[in-house]
Amino acid sequence: MKDCRNGCSAAEAGSQELAETFKAEDLVITPATVLKEKPDPDSLVFGTVFTDHMLEVQWSAESGWEKPHIKPFETLSLHPAASALHYAVQLFEGLKAFRGVDNKIRLFRPDLNMSRMCRSAVRATLPMFDQGELLECIQRLVLVDQEWVPYSPSASLYIRPTFVGIEPSLGVKKPTKALLYVILSPVGPYFSSGTFKPVSLWANPKYVRAWEGGTGDCKMGGNYGSSLLAQCEALESGCQQVLWLYGKDHQITEVGTMNLFLYWTNEDGGSIVCNLLHSKQGEFKVTERYLTMEHVQAALEGGRVKEMFGSGTACVVCPVSDILFQGQKLHIPTMENGSRLASRILGKLTDIQP
Amino acid sequence: MKDCRNGCSAAEAGSQELAETFKAEDLVITPATVLKEKPDPDSLVFGTVFTDHMLEVQWSAESGWEKPHIKPFETLSLHPAASALHYAVQLFEGLKAFRGVDNKIRLFRPDLNMSRMCRSAVRATLPMFDQGELLECIQRLVLVDQEWVPYSPSASLYIRPTFVGIEPSLGVKKPTKALLYVILSPVGPYFSSGTFKPVSLWANPKYVRAWEGGTGDCKMGGNYGSSLLAQCEALESGCQQVLWLYGKDHQITEVGTMNLFLYWTNEDGGSIVCNLLHSKQGEFKVTERYLTMEHVQAALEGGRVKEMFGSGTACVVCPVSDILFQGQKLHIPTMENGSRLASRILGKLTDIQP
Repeated sequence: MKDCRNGCSAAEAGSQELAETFKAEDLVITPATVLKEKPDPDSLVFGTVFTDHMLEVQWSAESGWEKPHIKPFETLSLHPAASALHYAVQLFEGLKAFRGVDNKIRLFRPDLNMSRMCRSAVRATLPMFDQGELLECIQRLVLVDQEWVPYSPSASLYIRPTFVGIEPSLGVKKPTKALLYVILSPVGPYFSSGTFKPVSLWANPKYVRAWEGGTGDCKMGGNYGSSLLAQCEALESGCQQVLWLYGKDHQITEVGTMNLFLYWTNEDGGSIVCNLLHSKQGEFKVTERYLTMEHVQAALEGGRVKEMFGSGTACVVCPVSDILFQGQKLHIPTMENGSRLASRILGKLTDIQP
Repeated sequence: MKDCRNGCSAAEAGSQELAETFKAEDLVITPATVLKEKPDPDSLVFGTVFTDHMLEVQWSAESGWEKPHIKPFETLSLHPAASALHYAVQLFEGLKAFRGVDNKIRLFRPDLNMSRMCRSAVRATLPMFDQGELLECIQRLVLVDQEWVPYSPSASLYIRPTFVGIEPSLGVKKPTKALLYVILSPVGPYFSSGTFKPVSLWANPKYVRAWEGGTGDCKMGGNYGSSLLAQCEALESGCQQVLWLYGKDHQITEVGTMNLFLYWTNEDGGSIVCNLLHSKQGEFKVTERYLTMEHVQAALEGGRVKEMFGSGTACVVCPVSDILFQGQKLHIPTMENGSRLASRILGKLTDIQP
């Protein structure tokens, strides 16, 4: 049996017993009797339409994992004390299935999502499972709903594995019941305005998204709920996304829910691309460095900034035109410079994705 | 109409439109047809048994608040994409109803819980409501289930208002649907071993519970889910609770989910009580100061520590006997010193509570 702890650091894994796993060969499939109408792929709003089926796997401390179940998409019945609703014992992943020009359906690097999901599970004190078995169950689910994978080069099927604690009591503790489920949603471009309309960013040090000793390295719900107020304030200030800062020197960390990239000429005259978080893609060479708002301001004043853009599973690539910081609007000439690198990366990503 | 924003800072409230509120006079009551058997108050485990009824109020951006509804306790039906389950758009409160020696039922300072709940709602981008109206609805709910308020001086009825975003789509944004509900649970002492068995604490700087720019000042679910792994490691190290540290100098912040108190003789020979967070009770005089593990170690070496204990709604008062820090077990002589202050505070609290 493949050990799910592969994806977790030894220290973290040590604190969690290796539990039995559910298995794809035990899958129970209950087909939907009524199928929904599929939407027009050009009018999709991100994450609002769901397919006919979902995957569900129940776990309890008492009897371990139950058989995985593919069944009609339906509302969940949860105890009002469920720990997912009170103590945010929850995590998720986001990945996509693409229909290739050969009409074959492919998932984009799902093994990386599965291993991060295990790392998040350890952090959330949710039970372990075998990554390979979950991936196989997801592939079966996508197969069942294969007609929902858009016949369109700009659309895809977004896959949302979700894992929640459903302990039905109010003590703050590791849950004795859990529910892992996967839902599917056909999606177009994340930003309804279209992929290459640039966004303006709101940078305000009063909100901090992640911190040392916290959960910023895991995909846990709590990281997102705490970010919504900043997102609202960004919108009220006429910006579309939050540029998250950290520390007294205003280090730049990420933008909205994306990694941030800066294409510039540095102080020594070298032309480089900075990925401000660890590269998760690895397809293109990047320099990772510590960067503050003051560095960006100096580079803008010196005319050294070429492009700035974000990248993530949901949005793919998103160019940046402005940053609102300390009452000043800093203009980023991404579009004036033809957003050539952003376009190239978008092209590369969309080339390897379908 | 009472403005719920009273409890929120002007700056925070400014970012949230004042919505219409639900009203207690609109309450719809659907009584349960079958009543459950009430448990023995001496064998209650915290938060595991619930009463016959619950309060539910639905909200949507489209039509505002619906009528509040007291109805039989039942499972919730949630859309699998509900933002409470993916992005931890959720908050809660905890307060208690006591049966006095005069057989009257009283809530303990519920107005403080209501105003914190509003503050949390602003932080979570959940809609506003009138504090007084919610309190009245809660009082009606307690009245409907009044036979569940234990006839016992050491037990009470724990009230859990919960407020969650139920936006049925996956975009990370302010929810357009929300559910406020309140459940009731008769409880005995929080620690199953009984109130005055001292606990040992696990202090490890690798996990940080709250940080500047985060949500530590609000009662949001994400604050708790991220704390469970530390709690598990504490248990594995033979300790019962986590002593949360902050910063490079190991400032002491809180213990488990409680405020921490230290009764000691300070460096100048003065005998003082430190409440390490802002006093929410206000019944006794305290000195609030910045304190690090190094201060505590020095005070222990100098024989200046008299008592250490935590206090909170769920546990009331909980004495501390040991702290495991950097591989060393530091013994706190709370019990040897007769835990006199802890007992006095427990007595005072239980005197004013029923």
